[in-house]
Amino acid sequence: MDYLKRFLVGKPLKSAQNDDHKLSKFAALAMLSSDALSSVAYGTEQIVLVLVTLSTAAIWYSLPIALGVIILLISLTLSYRQIIHAYPHGGGAYVVSSENLGKNFGLISGGSLLIDYMLTVAVSVSAGAEAITSAIPALYEHQVAISVTIVLLIMLMNLRGMRESASILMFPVYCFIAIITLLILVGVFKIATGILPYHATSHVGAVVPGIGIALILRAFSSGSASLTGVEAISNAVPFFKQPRAKNAAATLTMMATILGFFFVGITFLNYWLGIVPEKSVTVLSQVASGVFGHNILFYIFQFATAMILAVAANTGFSAFPMLSYNLAKDKYMPHMYMERGDRLGFSNGIMTLAFGAIFLLFIFQGSTERLIPLYSIGVFIPFALSQTGMVVHWKKNAGKKWFGKSIANMIGAFISYAIIVILFAFRIGDIWPFFIIMPILLYIFYRIHEHYVRVAEQLRLRDEVDEHEFSGNTVIVLVGNVTQVDIGAINYARSIGDHVIAMHVATDENKTKEEEIRKEFSEHFPDVRLSVVHSSYRSIVGPVVRYVDLVSKNAMKHNYTTTVLVPSFVPNRRWQQILHNQTSLRIRYYLSWREHIVVANYSYHLKK
Amino acid sequence: MDYLKRFLVGKPLKSAQNDDHKLSKFAALAMLSSDALSSVAYGTEQIVLVLVTLSTAAIWYSLPIALGVIILLISLTLSYRQIIHAYPHGGGAYVVSSENLGKNFGLISGGSLLIDYMLTVAVSVSAGAEAITSAIPALYEHQVAISVTIVLLIMLMNLRGMRESASILMFPVYCFIAIITLLILVGVFKIATGILPYHATSHVGAVVPGIGIALILRAFSSGSASLTGVEAISNAVPFFKQPRAKNAAATLTMMATILGFFFVGITFLNYWLGIVPEKSVTVLSQVASGVFGHNILFYIFQFATAMILAVAANTGFSAFPMLSYNLAKDKYMPHMYMERGDRLGFSNGIMTLAFGAIFLLFIFQGSTERLIPLYSIGVFIPFALSQTGMVVHWKKNAGKKWFGKSIANMIGAFISYAIIVILFAFRIGDIWPFFIIMPILLYIFYRIHEHYVRVAEQLRLRDEVDEHEFSGNTVIVLVGNVTQVDIGAINYARSIGDHVIAMHVATDENKTKEEEIRKEFSEHFPDVRLSVVHSSYRSIVGPVVRYVDLVSKNAMKHNYTTTVLVPSFVPNRRWQQILHNQTSLRIRYYLSWREHIVVANYSYHLKK
Repeated sequence: MDYLKRFLVGKPLKSAQNDDHKLSKFAALAMLSSDALSSVAYGTEQIVLVLVTLSTAAIWYSLPIALGVIILLISLTLSYRQIIHAYPHGGGAYVVSSENLGKNFGLISGGSLLIDYMLTVAVSVSAGAEAITSAIPALYEHQVAISVTIVLLIMLMNLRGMRESASILMFPVYCFIAIITLLILVGVFKIATGILPYHATSHVGAVVPGIGIALILRAFSSGSASLTGVEAISNAVPFFKQPRAKNAAATLTMMATILGFFFVGITFLNYWLGIVPEKSVTVLSQVASGVFGHNILFYIFQFATAMILAVAANTGFSAFPMLSYNLAKDKYMPHMYMERGDRLGFSNGIMTLAFGAIFLLFIFQGSTERLIPLYSIGVFIPFALSQTGMVVHWKKNAGKKWFGKSIANMIGAFISYAIIVILFAFRIGDIWPFFIIMPILLYIFYRIHEHYVRVAEQLRLRDEVDEHEFSGNTVIVLVGNVTQVDIGAINYARSIGDHVIAMHVATDENKTKEEEIRKEFSEHFPDVRLSVVHSSYRSIVGPVVRYVDLVSKNAMKHNYTTTVLVPSFVPNRRWQQILHNQTSLRIRYYLSWREHIVVANYSYHLKK
Repeated sequence: MDYLKRFLVGKPLKSAQNDDHKLSKFAALAMLSSDALSSVAYGTEQIVLVLVTLSTAAIWYSLPIALGVIILLISLTLSYRQIIHAYPHGGGAYVVSSENLGKNFGLISGGSLLIDYMLTVAVSVSAGAEAITSAIPALYEHQVAISVTIVLLIMLMNLRGMRESASILMFPVYCFIAIITLLILVGVFKIATGILPYHATSHVGAVVPGIGIALILRAFSSGSASLTGVEAISNAVPFFKQPRAKNAAATLTMMATILGFFFVGITFLNYWLGIVPEKSVTVLSQVASGVFGHNILFYIFQFATAMILAVAANTGFSAFPMLSYNLAKDKYMPHMYMERGDRLGFSNGIMTLAFGAIFLLFIFQGSTERLIPLYSIGVFIPFALSQTGMVVHWKKNAGKKWFGKSIANMIGAFISYAIIVILFAFRIGDIWPFFIIMPILLYIFYRIHEHYVRVAEQLRLRDEVDEHEFSGNTVIVLVGNVTQVDIGAINYARSIGDHVIAMHVATDENKTKEEEIRKEFSEHFPDVRLSVVHSSYRSIVGPVVRYVDLVSKNAMKHNYTTTVLVPSFVPNRRWQQILHNQTSLRIRYYLSWREHIVVANYSYHLKK
């Protein structure tokens, strides 16, 4: 096991090696924008998928809807620039909401984000798998398997620690930026030169019978999923080079500009080419093969898309463990999320995220389309809450200028609430699980918190320390068959105990064996008392616990402590462990729940 | 956890409750024939599936092939009647091969059967799911999910113990016998009265271009899968009423007659109706709707088929744990397969089987067709070996009459080998995994055996017992923050130790905390030495182990024993356990591998 772990995870790192590698704008853009940028891989498709439920003629509406998304993007960008300047130490939604709106809203933000990071991973990875299967249709059947494999690979990379690989991540991101830019430029050039003929399913402005505000809003809410990931930079301000806030804000603007350009460009090309969503080929891949033709460039394009989506999934793997660390530090999640693994990553957070995402992939059978609405609600709730928090923040801290400072946040909050309302009104059939999971999550947060507070209180030392002097110690040694192990165990028991009892559990099935053990024992240990306890069930745990309780009660009367010594043997090789000691393990487990009993493990080492 | 277990698994049973409920012939037929009888649900289909790869006109060949299967059935039946009389204590292939052909062949039989029982479960359950989805096509997509659910349900039933439910199992089996008999009778009647017109794809005797011996043998080998399960009765002789062997043999003959009648009847109806296999509807279900029409009787028919297939899967759940018990008793499998659970079932065997079958269902995506060839090779190898073993048995025990006695076994063996050769020659593409898994399994068996033998040797008491008198005991108490827990732990340590050391691991990150702990500790325990060990890694396990090794080495020099006392606290409710003690657990685990160190667990009980 250990060798395997070393091989997969790598050598342990010193804590001091956790020094900061600060990010330049160029590196930061690569590190932090993959989530946002990669969403153009499915953003347009999500809008068109809703529109074609009416008719393919409705596709032209994707253009004004894309415009709406761009307006939303601009307002969110301005709003997050404000957060960057106000929280240069990193203003995640959990922190901003907790500080300004109180713990309740903070936990709602935090809980939403935990779910959302799982969805980020699931959505990105399944969109990545779709990019692969669009290029290689033979793999279409294995989409879920591909997705799960990618998640496991990313998990492993993160358990190894991502430090060394930061620069590796830049490659796919810039690759993607380059190839999408190329796609749009080549597309526009070919349109301008008339090489790419106009194939739109209907002209802009055409009246499509049956179109209504509900459909448009549904499509808009789907398209707004492209904006998830915009907040990433605001959480990561401390990792920027000085001047941090300024660099971060500039990076955010840069990212938003690229994202907007890509989104509009792809939506336009899709409209021009009259592309209708297909089951097994993504819209983006159809656009690419329309513009590039079905040649090597197309395959490079699909590969670059899959790569950036994998990198985007990876963002979840840095954000989720960090957030769960913060929640654990505030005692709302189990302490184990605070422990760093050998390679300085928060291993428990990393694994929780991976298995959560895999679970979602199985539930939703890797369908991006069905994951998107949940993803949107999970992201716009913390968006809305942190913007609202910012308004409160300015009100408290900015004096008279608060209104001016908070105007961007107000608009951001307003749009976010609007999207939540739209999702609630038109997508409730898709997003209802969120409203079941969230209250449960909040309940768990509070239960955990309450528990930790109560425990700390009970454990605190009071001034008078109850120093108690015991008169002696009783040791019970569990004996199975009489073997070499027992010799060592009894010798040890004598060194710590004033009174040593050996105990054997006999099952009904084997009377002769009991006699044999009595005889053998008295032969080898004439001066140790052997108690034989009978069991009518096969389980020997029950009788042991009952007998030990009895002895311990008696010991306490005499001001003695009680120790149960469970002998076990350590085989020569680790794998052999599974062939032995199942019963000792179980006995130790059950005895560890008894009060006033110390359970000790004597291990005998086999040499061969 | 415990409540959940009680609810799902039921109350523990006494060992003495394990008395035998002997079976009448009527009950035995129901209990032991489900595996064999249920295979008519897919037997004909497997033959036809192979034939139609050439052309639908080839379907008429299924009639002579069915005849071949019947001959095989008769010879196997005669052969197994011999085994029943020779091994009235139950003659599984493992026992018969081990005794007569040696351990190697015994283990090959045993290993094949272990795999085969997993395949039995997987095949039966997926065929059952197909029966359901043939009736309700809307469920077709969820075939794997249905199969997995059925496996889990059967597993749970078996963990509860099947004793009470023996009579419940009779219902589906007799139901199935009744409805298949009805199907054949109604079919023949309707044919005789001309209601059911002749629709055969081609006449018997028609020459189909391209037909060859290879195809016929492939089809024959697929059809012979129907004969799996014939051996079940021979394993279960001890469960029959007296005279055991005679009753068992009579039951076997009865079962074989019914099986043969069903197989021929269904194959004939299939030919007459000219049914061609379809992707989502089974052949048997097409026969049924052809004969009965698509009415309520058809649905009852499908339901009865699904039920008997579930019962057939259940057979695996009694056979697999029993076989793994026998292998564990002979030290070829881990001891844990010998432990009976609370309800007298061999829980570990039951769970291994269930998860193995689920694994197969996922790998083969619940496709009966792809599972069948593997299933056949896994069953005909032990068939062949046990028949061969019987020939050897007669040679040894029957004196001059050996030839007469063994003639049935010789024919049985010959046919079984022939089928193995056919499978090897024409289905190697499907059965190759078997020849990879078997050697691995054999290797594991031998490694386990060798290990157990070696351990037993090392543990055996020699005549001189090394009774050693230690001079005293050193106790190391691990201290985190100074809390109430530590008071109790140090009091206890004093009761067993002549020399008590407290130990704290400080991580680099927190220098001030270290000072705080030193101060607090010396305030409360002025007379106990506190050793603070530094860790440059976050892991505190490494430093603890190194320090403990040092102390123990020193203690040994002074003829002292060493105990490490790890305090932990027991929360008021079980679920809260997950919120605590992760580190103590890890430390205890790693220390338990050190020689000459006893690890003791002091537990402090929280009241709130």
